[in-house]
Amino acid sequence: MQHQLPDSIALLARTPAALNALLRDLPETWTFRNEGENTWSVFDVVGHLNHGERTDWMPRARTILQFGEAKPFEPFDREAQGRESQGKSLGQLLDEFASLRSENLQELRALNLKPEDLARRGRHPALGVVTLSELLATWAAHDLTHLHQISRVMAYQYREAVGPWTRYLGVMQCAGHSAPR
Amino acid sequence: MQHQLPDSIALLARTPAALNALLRDLPETWTFRNEGENTWSVFDVVGHLNHGERTDWMPRARTILQFGEAKPFEPFDREAQGRESQGKSLGQLLDEFASLRSENLQELRALNLKPEDLARRGRHPALGVVTLSELLATWAAHDLTHLHQISRVMAYQYREAVGPWTRYLGVMQCAGHSAPR
Repeated sequence: MQHQLPDSIALLARTPAALNALLRDLPETWTFRNEGENTWSVFDVVGHLNHGERTDWMPRARTILQFGEAKPFEPFDREAQGRESQGKSLGQLLDEFASLRSENLQELRALNLKPEDLARRGRHPALGVVTLSELLATWAAHDLTHLHQISRVMAYQYREAVGPWTRYLGVMQCAGHSAPR
Repeated sequence: MQHQLPDSIALLARTPAALNALLRDLPETWTFRNEGENTWSVFDVVGHLNHGERTDWMPRARTILQFGEAKPFEPFDREAQGRESQGKSLGQLLDEFASLRSENLQELRALNLKPEDLARRGRHPALGVVTLSELLATWAAHDLTHLHQISRVMAYQYREAVGPWTRYLGVMQCAGHSAPR
């Protein structure tokens, strides 16, 4: 199935409001606990999404449009949120996410990309040649992988509370499928 | 960690608005496609959540409070949503979810459950003895397992569109952890 940019934009536009509705003012049991040492809490995940809005998706799209394969993307710092989120509340991070995403989508729409633009190629520092279409589809799928993670991290906090029902709850069996770094 | 009922209620109260923000008027690429034969689309999942609101959680809580272990719960029909959702739009299902959940939480709050109530025991037809506390914690975790599923089913639609990035997206490696039936 061909990637349809309006489908990606429709999802990207909804994620901030969905996370806001789910997470704002939720008890910290759900949002500040993680799955153990060196794992992320919901707070960390929202910080990571904000870092992506600042440094990953639209900057890489601009790199493809300006330099094609000639200039590899800047590597993405997967641990930057610890620094950037320091001293902030989850509510602040959710506000930032909504406003960063809205600005980025405004810029994306203004590019008015045509099929031939979406086919343009760039260079990922580890994955090699990728297209602008793949980058923008990944932006949307990246929201989904972190929604998947958020639901798993939250469910983990109830792994004992649910008693014998744990076996019926797929999310309790999910180990996260972390990518090799 | 002890189950705190207010934590469960806080999450249960937010899920309908979160799904509404994520899913309403989203292109059908995301909401009407599934992961292959005999799997559920997002539309099916929301129908299943509604069936649970009607027949599972509060009816079972009432069974525990009225009959204790003497009367096993009615088995839950995991395929009922096909029937109940027929002819409805996703928007209608989301409206139903919001109103059923709100009514159920109103009833739950009115019960004003004390720790000794939460410790009361009932009988699950397959799992055996369970407590009211476990039932109510499972209600919240059940929202999360289906949010986990929804993000996975949606991501599946982009498994080709993301190109080589698929290896960095944990959700693309998730096979669903389905429970044995």
